[in-house]
Amino acid sequence: MAITASIIGSTGYTGEELTKLLIAHSKVEKILLASKSNVDLPIDPKYHKVTDKIYSKYLDYNDNLLFNSDVIFFATPNGVAQKFTKPFYDKEILIIDLSADFRLKNPNEYKKWYGNKHTQSELLNLSCYGLSEIYKSSIAKSRLIANPGCYATAIQLGLYPLIKNKIIQLSNIVVDAKSGVSGAGRKIAGEYLFCEVNENIRAYAISGHRHYPEMIQTLQPIADEPIDLTFIPHLIPMQRGILATIYANSISNITSNQIKETFLDCYENTKFVRVLKNGETPNTANVVNTNFCDLGIHLIENSKKIIVTSAIDNMVKGAAGQAIQNMNIALGFDESEGLI
Amino acid sequence: MAITASIIGSTGYTGEELTKLLIAHSKVEKILLASKSNVDLPIDPKYHKVTDKIYSKYLDYNDNLLFNSDVIFFATPNGVAQKFTKPFYDKEILIIDLSADFRLKNPNEYKKWYGNKHTQSELLNLSCYGLSEIYKSSIAKSRLIANPGCYATAIQLGLYPLIKNKIIQLSNIVVDAKSGVSGAGRKIAGEYLFCEVNENIRAYAISGHRHYPEMIQTLQPIADEPIDLTFIPHLIPMQRGILATIYANSISNITSNQIKETFLDCYENTKFVRVLKNGETPNTANVVNTNFCDLGIHLIENSKKIIVTSAIDNMVKGAAGQAIQNMNIALGFDESEGLI
Amino acid sequence: MAITASIIGSTGYTGEELTKLLIAHSKVEKILLASKSNVDLPIDPKYHKVTDKIYSKYLDYNDNLLFNSDVIFFATPNGVAQKFTKPFYDKEILIIDLSADFRLKNPNEYKKWYGNKHTQSELLNLSCYGLSEIYKSSIAKSRLIANPGCYATAIQLGLYPLIKNKIIQLSNIVVDAKSGVSGAGRKIAGEYLFCEVNENIRAYAISGHRHYPEMIQTLQPIADEPIDLTFIPHLIPMQRGILATIYANSISNITSNQIKETFLDCYENTKFVRVLKNGETPNTANVVNTNFCDLGIHLIENSKKIIVTSAIDNMVKGAAGQAIQNMNIALGFDESEGLI
Amino acid sequence: MAITASIIGSTGYTGEELTKLLIAHSKVEKILLASKSNVDLPIDPKYHKVTDKIYSKYLDYNDNLLFNSDVIFFATPNGVAQKFTKPFYDKEILIIDLSADFRLKNPNEYKKWYGNKHTQSELLNLSCYGLSEIYKSSIAKSRLIANPGCYATAIQLGLYPLIKNKIIQLSNIVVDAKSGVSGAGRKIAGEYLFCEVNENIRAYAISGHRHYPEMIQTLQPIADEPIDLTFIPHLIPMQRGILATIYANSISNITSNQIKETFLDCYENTKFVRVLKNGETPNTANVVNTNFCDLGIHLIENSKKIIVTSAIDNMVKGAAGQAIQNMNIALGFDESEGLI
Repeated sequence: MAITASIIGSTGYTGEELTKLLIAHSKVEKILLASKSNVDLPIDPKYHKVTDKIYSKYLDYNDNLLFNSDVIFFATPNGVAQKFTKPFYDKEILIIDLSADFRLKNPNEYKKWYGNKHTQSELLNLSCYGLSEIYKSSIAKSRLIANPGCYATAIQLGLYPLIKNKIIQLSNIVVDAKSGVSGAGRKIAGEYLFCEVNENIRAYAISGHRHYPEMIQTLQPIADEPIDLTFIPHLIPMQRGILATIYANSISNITSNQIKETFLDCYENTKFVRVLKNGETPNTANVVNTNFCDLGIHLIENSKKIIVTSAIDNMVKGAAGQAIQNMNIALGFDESEGLI
Repeated sequence: MAITASIIGSTGYTGEELTKLLIAHSKVEKILLASKSNVDLPIDPKYHKVTDKIYSKYLDYNDNLLFNSDVIFFATPNGVAQKFTKPFYDKEILIIDLSADFRLKNPNEYKKWYGNKHTQSELLNLSCYGLSEIYKSSIAKSRLIANPGCYATAIQLGLYPLIKNKIIQLSNIVVDAKSGVSGAGRKIAGEYLFCEVNENIRAYAISGHRHYPEMIQTLQPIADEPIDLTFIPHLIPMQRGILATIYANSISNITSNQIKETFLDCYENTKFVRVLKNGETPNTANVVNTNFCDLGIHLIENSKKIIVTSAIDNMVKGAAGQAIQNMNIALGFDESEGLI
Repeated sequence: MAITASIIGSTGYTGEELTKLLIAHSKVEKILLASKSNVDLPIDPKYHKVTDKIYSKYLDYNDNLLFNSDVIFFATPNGVAQKFTKPFYDKEILIIDLSADFRLKNPNEYKKWYGNKHTQSELLNLSCYGLSEIYKSSIAKSRLIANPGCYATAIQLGLYPLIKNKIIQLSNIVVDAKSGVSGAGRKIAGEYLFCEVNENIRAYAISGHRHYPEMIQTLQPIADEPIDLTFIPHLIPMQRGILATIYANSISNITSNQIKETFLDCYENTKFVRVLKNGETPNTANVVNTNFCDLGIHLIENSKKIIVTSAIDNMVKGAAGQAIQNMNIALGFDESEGLI
Repeated sequence: MAITASIIGSTGYTGEELTKLLIAHSKVEKILLASKSNVDLPIDPKYHKVTDKIYSKYLDYNDNLLFNSDVIFFATPNGVAQKFTKPFYDKEILIIDLSADFRLKNPNEYKKWYGNKHTQSELLNLSCYGLSEIYKSSIAKSRLIANPGCYATAIQLGLYPLIKNKIIQLSNIVVDAKSGVSGAGRKIAGEYLFCEVNENIRAYAISGHRHYPEMIQTLQPIADEPIDLTFIPHLIPMQRGILATIYANSISNITSNQIKETFLDCYENTKFVRVLKNGETPNTANVVNTNFCDLGIHLIENSKKIIVTSAIDNMVKGAAGQAIQNMNIALGFDESEGLI
């Protein structure tokens, strides 16, 4: 089976990463790129000699050619996918949205965190949250997949086994996350200039980050009581990579090995989550340009504190890679096809 | 009053930072540099045309010339200062040790964290912990000052007002700290190569970092119950700067403004601690090459979590700058002389 | 003598660097900051606890208060200084322009390289090109100093002794220069985003860079025949620093030592040019945050090629530092006052 | 056809890059890794879940298992491959040496540039210099391929068409090259520490770089007179990527378009050399993690200077990628198999 894949919003960092992965994907025969600011312009010369899968011009977001797609990825700013999704969905084209438009089931939550009323709230219940390892069977049946946020991916993969298996107290969970700059996309703003980011670190979004509600949406249903989780992101001077450091109190006299076994059980049959050996901590450099999530598990004996460090490439497992993984699951390909 | 200042261990990163600051210090007339690996060699040509304060050759650690010093800084690896301090101390020369040798009052704690028996434990009680803002009056009278660790400086300045004023619960304090690479000194090890550090972040010392006991030594005496503090450091791809993100539960219905007032009260008359306005968070870039510690104060209303972000330059306020500040205090100069 | 110094265009990178240097300058008592986009707003809180020399609000470019200045620095985009200079000049206030407005004596050259007609061409002959080491005596008498471009500073200091002393052939001079990103100022453009600059290098302005004509204006008059010089700048992933690598053919059987002597003769009595020893090559890291220009001199014996590497901090010797040096010379202070 | 590929010296940066590429190569079924310092140890856990092609333990350099290889790569320091090559060569195993051991045909040149007598000089004439685009037909027949140096690859691809087609004068060729730090390998030396490389640039090997003789060996035979080429490398703060800026005088009244056509003719049928459009200059970021060499062609009209900028990833086209390309050619696979 050879498919046609389209990317709407193909010239941002995420769109480009998707393009790179689709070029390398053995099941993808044809790629259509849509870009509002480049309609009808020839595709970027950077694809010269790289591939002949890509259609020669950039399309508009509603170009008829797009209806020949087997899968359409939205790599657009928040608010765009909801405007264009319906006609594609009605044609039963698989849609994978990398923006936040279909992540939150509750339209009020969407309004609260993203500022605008959701214009296609009836689609929200038809969408599936694309955290591949956790919702694999639903993803396989879905035609509208909401790809998770980058922080949300790293943090949920670290917290899920702890909460699911009632290993930690649900109060006093602290998540301190650090991200490279590509997470902000190709946004031209003073704060992302080289001279502002280099040799600097700062916390941001302290009063609340938009990836918080999607984490709670996943984790609260598997918890017995309200989850009390504090999440603070930081911007650090690198391009790619997220490290989330998760601090929680263990609930009982669990041992370090028992915690590790829980993680191994949870992720044993997954392709892209690796639980490190005792004493090892992940380096983001080891997961960059891959779809892996590396998890380091630590128990501080005398304080009964559990510390989980979770590392991903924000552009791959945190965006384009997980989107391809979800495509593979939904179209029945091998889950790791085209991914490293 | 014009003084002679000496640096033992002058060719490491801390020693060089001290040299730079002493050159710019109006009260310092003469600088002697001692360096084990360069004894009798001419001083680094990088000081050419910069200054004529520096004596032309590197001295050995026990050179007689050093006894003409008004102040001697040890910028040596842990374990060295304790070997050489006594004769200088007996001559009433002011000693400021930037290593860990005189930080912990309890020699057993030293043995536990640094691996070796302390060889001059009788000097421990004569030393003063040089956290300038907190121990200023003792520093003024001391002749043996133990300059604090870099992480310890950033974290204590952020936690002191919270604990002193009983604003936070003493359990569940989490400190997630991030440091530039110069904190490791000029140590030639694979892990500090450019290609290992660049585009990478990792946690380290998860089972316990040596700056932990000196923080507890300062903070426990002002607390009513045992402090339960988890501290995890991270290495990030930059040269200078530490950001410590401190998470704690507020003890009562305190408001954001009240917390800020507490910090302002505590640091109002200090020269180098700046409490940022509501909503502002420190950037390490703003404190790099200065002796400032910038503190951002945040209260998450619904979770009653207090978050303090503390930024310093690990080489200045976290090492050489605070050492000069302590020298200024101990010798009766203006506290900010020679410092920015 | 205590002076009032003003900066027009004070919130760009150059304006901020100037502010930092003026704060540290012992002869400067009062600093006025003008910023078009911040008129009447309170000055940046980053100066809190740093100084009380700065007037509390940002002024407009023609505020009457500015006429109380002893010196006015323009750190504005090209084209601005020429609009505002005349009234200050008429009041005999020393003007130091860090833009390109007064660098080229020939208004046609200005038009050719900067695109617009010069509106105050009668001032061009009254201005002095502020390459401190070369034009020191003229600078001392001038009231309108055109501070050189950053590349132009590094390159001219490397080439001047070679051409002046007829050591090199005037054809086939190649200058390959590499600059950190701050040279572009705080310009918010996609090409200067962290993710575009980091882990990347590229040549630019291959068809001609604006610093070329000011170099020729300095060097041609000391040459016997037309200078044939190719100059290509490159952008590299660092904040500060320029390294210019100059390639030229030696004119005769000159030795390596003779070349070095020529440079030593030329710069012996200067404060900020350092000629390195045989075999040494400058690191930009050694001159960053200083006003030094470090020069490495090499002769390839068998090809008779002379290679000079010239390193400066583009923000200091290449901009704000040289401006202060020029102020010192013009106002009769010690040339190195306030500079490292 | 499915092959077994072995890497001798597999834990350096080049060995790891080769491993990554071989894992992704569809014709490679089994990979053997030899590492002197890890003999008999289990392979790095970083390959966990990535592949099952790799044999579970590190082998010694002369392990019998290696004789089952179809191809053996040497990613060892200079001097090692010559010791171990003979027995493999005698068994008709394809050998690709990424070190300098078989690059120079003349053993005296080897002695001059690498300091030691070549111990297998009889093999030198049996080896083929593996600059894939230039020596493709010889590579196809060779069993001992000397993979070119990283600088040498970038520079030769830029100069070859100019010299071959007699477009430039052979005197006064200047090559100013800039490299990321991975070019130095995983060498633990002070000069490659993060704090020494970051925010710094410097020239090095000014008196002569080892990649010079292999370039002359390729280029002199296609030239009419002696080539006079000055080559200076620089170290810049990035991990991967080389940009070589080549300056030469055009020989006649050739136009910019004619030069470009020459390059297009030369590289039209190649897979990995891309000649950019007029006015475009390569960014190393566009070739990093690929096997491409991007060439920018410029003619300065009034000075008749030709400037060619050549960008590669030093770890891919400059090392492991070109080695795979050579393996593909020698074993009759598609030249771009397993490469991007």
